[in-house]
Amino acid sequence: MSNKVVVSLVLALVAALITILYAFLIFYKIGKIKIKNKKVEDVSAYIRSGAMTFLKREYKIIIIFVIIVAVVLALLGLIPALNGKAEGVGWQSSLCFIVGAAFSALTGLIGMLIATKSNSRTADCVQEKGISGALKVAFSGGAVLGLSVVGFGLLGLAGLSFIFAAGISGAHNVTLDDGLENAAKIVTGYGLGCSMIALFARVGGGIYTKAADVGADIVGKIEQNIPEDDPRNPATIADNVGDNVGDVAGMGSDLCESYVGSIISALTLGSVAINGNNYEITRLLFPLLIAACGLIAAVLSVIIIRSRQWKNPQLTLSIATYIATGIVVVATILLSIFFLKDGNGNAEPKAIGAVCAGLICGILVGKIAEIYTSSDYKAVKEIAKESETGHATNIIAGFSVGLKSTFLTIVALAAGIIVSFLFLKEYGIALAAVGMLSTAGITISVDGYGPISDNAGGIAQMSGLPEEVRHVTDHLDSVGNTTAAIGKGFCIGSATFTALALLLSYAHSVNLEAADLLKTEVFVGLLIGGMLPFLFSALVISSVGKAGNKMVVEVRRQFAENPGILTGTVVPDYDKCIDISTKASLKEMILPGVIAVLTPIAVGFALGKYALAGLLAGGLLSAIMLAVFMANAGGAWDNAKKYIEEGHNGGKGSLSHQASITGDTVGDPLKDTAGPAMDILIKLMSIIALIIAPIISTLPSLWDLIVEAIG
Amino acid sequence: MSNKVVVSLVLALVAALITILYAFLIFYKIGKIKIKNKKVEDVSAYIRSGAMTFLKREYKIIIIFVIIVAVVLALLGLIPALNGKAEGVGWQSSLCFIVGAAFSALTGLIGMLIATKSNSRTADCVQEKGISGALKVAFSGGAVLGLSVVGFGLLGLAGLSFIFAAGISGAHNVTLDDGLENAAKIVTGYGLGCSMIALFARVGGGIYTKAADVGADIVGKIEQNIPEDDPRNPATIADNVGDNVGDVAGMGSDLCESYVGSIISALTLGSVAINGNNYEITRLLFPLLIAACGLIAAVLSVIIIRSRQWKNPQLTLSIATYIATGIVVVATILLSIFFLKDGNGNAEPKAIGAVCAGLICGILVGKIAEIYTSSDYKAVKEIAKESETGHATNIIAGFSVGLKSTFLTIVALAAGIIVSFLFLKEYGIALAAVGMLSTAGITISVDGYGPISDNAGGIAQMSGLPEEVRHVTDHLDSVGNTTAAIGKGFCIGSATFTALALLLSYAHSVNLEAADLLKTEVFVGLLIGGMLPFLFSALVISSVGKAGNKMVVEVRRQFAENPGILTGTVVPDYDKCIDISTKASLKEMILPGVIAVLTPIAVGFALGKYALAGLLAGGLLSAIMLAVFMANAGGAWDNAKKYIEEGHNGGKGSLSHQASITGDTVGDPLKDTAGPAMDILIKLMSIIALIIAPIISTLPSLWDLIVEAIG
Repeated sequence: MSNKVVVSLVLALVAALITILYAFLIFYKIGKIKIKNKKVEDVSAYIRSGAMTFLKREYKIIIIFVIIVAVVLALLGLIPALNGKAEGVGWQSSLCFIVGAAFSALTGLIGMLIATKSNSRTADCVQEKGISGALKVAFSGGAVLGLSVVGFGLLGLAGLSFIFAAGISGAHNVTLDDGLENAAKIVTGYGLGCSMIALFARVGGGIYTKAADVGADIVGKIEQNIPEDDPRNPATIADNVGDNVGDVAGMGSDLCESYVGSIISALTLGSVAINGNNYEITRLLFPLLIAACGLIAAVLSVIIIRSRQWKNPQLTLSIATYIATGIVVVATILLSIFFLKDGNGNAEPKAIGAVCAGLICGILVGKIAEIYTSSDYKAVKEIAKESETGHATNIIAGFSVGLKSTFLTIVALAAGIIVSFLFLKEYGIALAAVGMLSTAGITISVDGYGPISDNAGGIAQMSGLPEEVRHVTDHLDSVGNTTAAIGKGFCIGSATFTALALLLSYAHSVNLEAADLLKTEVFVGLLIGGMLPFLFSALVISSVGKAGNKMVVEVRRQFAENPGILTGTVVPDYDKCIDISTKASLKEMILPGVIAVLTPIAVGFALGKYALAGLLAGGLLSAIMLAVFMANAGGAWDNAKKYIEEGHNGGKGSLSHQASITGDTVGDPLKDTAGPAMDILIKLMSIIALIIAPIISTLPSLWDLIVEAIG
Repeated sequence: MSNKVVVSLVLALVAALITILYAFLIFYKIGKIKIKNKKVEDVSAYIRSGAMTFLKREYKIIIIFVIIVAVVLALLGLIPALNGKAEGVGWQSSLCFIVGAAFSALTGLIGMLIATKSNSRTADCVQEKGISGALKVAFSGGAVLGLSVVGFGLLGLAGLSFIFAAGISGAHNVTLDDGLENAAKIVTGYGLGCSMIALFARVGGGIYTKAADVGADIVGKIEQNIPEDDPRNPATIADNVGDNVGDVAGMGSDLCESYVGSIISALTLGSVAINGNNYEITRLLFPLLIAACGLIAAVLSVIIIRSRQWKNPQLTLSIATYIATGIVVVATILLSIFFLKDGNGNAEPKAIGAVCAGLICGILVGKIAEIYTSSDYKAVKEIAKESETGHATNIIAGFSVGLKSTFLTIVALAAGIIVSFLFLKEYGIALAAVGMLSTAGITISVDGYGPISDNAGGIAQMSGLPEEVRHVTDHLDSVGNTTAAIGKGFCIGSATFTALALLLSYAHSVNLEAADLLKTEVFVGLLIGGMLPFLFSALVISSVGKAGNKMVVEVRRQFAENPGILTGTVVPDYDKCIDISTKASLKEMILPGVIAVLTPIAVGFALGKYALAGLLAGGLLSAIMLAVFMANAGGAWDNAKKYIEEGHNGGKGSLSHQASITGDTVGDPLKDTAGPAMDILIKLMSIIALIIAPIISTLPSLWDLIVEAIG
């Protein structure tokens, strides 16, 4: 049977390497494209250097955190009481953690490099090659990000699993199968590494991008009445850097975390199921192989798209997704029938149902997000209509749309959970998560296309390229907005499944017979967990406000002290604005980050392992609800503004337009900072619970001691 | 032992009757006060007739619902399979339900009558008797409402318990103790009756009041620039009627539901505890006696306040609360030591801890609400500061304050739950709810004072009374705003404890050994339950918008068709506006009401009794979070506006002021419609679960059948 382990892991590694190599090939090809316009090159250099400044500073802070956590993990392994029980901690987990953080940080770097290379080339090639050329560059840039994220994600996971499986097998003289089962617990540390980077990239990035955006808009657009992306605005480069920081690095690390987390939980739940008499190692290998097929599917899809000329961006992106999804479905069917075995050694076609439930659920949640945020549907039009009576009615209408959108989303998620469970119990839920994320390679590519097109537009504007260039980039960008909304829905859906699978893994890991919410400590855990997303949102929204205010002050200062900036004779001090956003975002994310990390630990030790399960469930519930509410309300406000700007309900300059700008401004920190942070929060808390599981399951909690003392 | 039952129930009934009689006495005395000013009398008559129109229409609809539910309850008792098991359904429960609905509706009627009598008399007596006279009338009016709610609440509960205990005892030849234990399950129907009225009064009332408010403000204040409460505004009477409908009848029925629900859950959980060997009937009688003491405490407190002249409204209301609380604490100590027995027949002083935990928790949650909504603290000042940069920053700041306020509130509630549980387990949690609500008589009195003072101000304005009268009523009203915010916190806190106690009662009633949230159906129940408050909020907020728009159209029409209205020569058609608010509110509340009633039933039958527990827990979690968020965000926006109007951050007419008006308008439907509706939603769902418990515990659910079929 060990042959299967070797072959499967080697296949996964080969798939990962192919994916990474192909990503590098595209990276190289994009880099070779010459930028013809000098101005474009200059602006692009500013953005790239701003992005690198942020990354450098961020990674300096991250290194400190990584060292601290790595040392703590390693030291925890030395506690004698945990000997032999604590597979989740110790130097091995510490190593996995470091590799996870390093790989995730590396993909963030690659993503930022390619995004800042392809944005300028997208803008630059419009005049020569038209929309199809620009589309190809923008899509290819996104593909580098997407393929790197999943490539490195699987490379690390499969590689570490292989190393530790072989090591354990050799050291303890057990089969490679047993080795892999134990290795699955060690690689949880890898997930924690990805989570930590995701926290910094998503939350810090979210604060960065919105602080820059608010600063640029308030002083530039409103006070000085200069257009968006005007090079005279000192905050405009920071604003464009922010798009990369938030939507490229942030989004990539978010889905990387989900991707890795879903496979880890499938490994854990797969190994739980085989602990009994019916031992079948293919249950552990199946999710890895599905992931491998997903990688190859993404590579093939990118090759096909790149090999032809496309003119319709929406259609192109859809086809890319369909190709990848189709390949994964076929692979799933084959693997379920010819590879995966149930306890009696028979084929397990039910896995097809579970994987497809995840795939469909992911698409549905994205589609629902579109219904509530696209101006093709009723909700956005209603907000536009309500804007006619002013700011307050616009806000109330958007608020109401966001709240309402939770209904269908939850129905879809609940249906996905029920169906996948009915197919293969808890393992089915984990497989649904793996299925949903198997196409992450292409989903991230499509998502990454958005900010690149957005930036291309900004660069075209700042470089003074002709109107028709801006027209093309605007068209590319508008498609990007729709994919962004769908992508956010997908992030939420995948985070839900991943967090649920991690919760179930945690429960098995601490041998919870039940997390009975009628028990007071579980219910209290549920309450505290349910409150955390609200508190976390409040903190990051406040942070955006504070950082934005600093930016406003700085931009005003530059305009006041140097009148040449506004007349266009003096280049503004872009670096100063980049510096403010960078510092503020990194400083402001410490407190929410610490709360997210310490609360599960505190609740675990104080109220016990049952309460911690309650905390995770409550957190998951509130986090989904708020994430859906904020993403959709924000998206709807944004598109209501665009809808009005297209000439409806009074059009530009009307009271409706003013009101819709208010809605958009309110929605920005919700949809781009607090909302996406919810995904990270809940996954991070779940994976921390999984890490501390071996420790809290061996110690009595404070609650246990008090209840025992009272009698 | 049966003597104890007879004596205790008789004492409770006597306390209830004394309270009701005293309430009628004050009612009579207020009615005897002559209104000197003819104009005041006219305006007051308009408001009273508008209020009665609403009540009449509402009660007509309610009667239909009551008949349907009563018939269903009675018929369910005829199902042979439920014979002997289903104490919660059948003609007895049906009868209890009708009495509960009738009593609750009656107190609503009394509350509206006294509020519309005392508002005019408050305004009218300022010139003659000064602030102390006006304060006395307003407080007395509130006291009639408060005393009636708790008096009738306990009268029905104790009376029905007595009748059915005696009946069962006689019919089945068991002791009166056993009779009472079984009667406790029957009187759940009484709670359902109160819940149904609360749903109509709180949700319908909330829509009514805000629709009228929005209509009056948008056309009156903003478009025509006439002051608040100007008699030329056709919607102004509807606006004043709305204050009574929402804040008097709505608030009273909300707390009545909590009050009755807490006692019912304590009876249920008390009887669970005595089902084993350690039988002690005082556990059932104790909560009834605490409630009886609470009634007497409220009566004494009102007598003391009414016997003196007071000049400081804040101090007066505080003293009233302190007196009542002090008396209840002393009574609790005495009853715990000399009456309540543990399983071995010893005194049970731990009950003091549980009851006091509830009392303190109620005060704390109210205090926290004050911290986030009073302009004496930082949060409101920050919103005012953020208003300087415009509408969007005002909204974001208030949004953030609301989110942040959940933190301390949940900490206080969690601490209250933990402490009361550690004292006396689940019975302790029920006692904490009873303790918190034992002072409901005086809490409602204080709360009722608010809308009466508010109306008095409106009447003074509309009747053209001198400036100094308006000054006095404004002062009375501003104190009312603080008590309203604290009262909302109290409603949320008490709803949380009551719903939790009802959830625990439900669990015992269907013999849930555990509601394991790791089980897929429980988790899905949690998700659906958690989504309902979001959907429910969205629906009622939309309803306010729709009803408000109709009002705007009507007011504009009257001004346009009859120019004499604006010049003051023609009396506007107030009735038409009242009619619009009445019809819209009653129509718009049907859908949310049906969802609230049918979802627990559907989930119970489709996914089973475990999933229903999940639904209640998820619903409770989201409902508290949203209720706290919406109440505090709304309160903070409201007071930020008032703070700016006092001259801070630019003062009246500035951009800050404009922005703060937007915030206030956004906050209105949140804090006065959707937020308070959350309390009702979660209690109603819990009590419906308790009612259908005997049925779903005897039938297999659809989920069970599917899982069994799949194998």
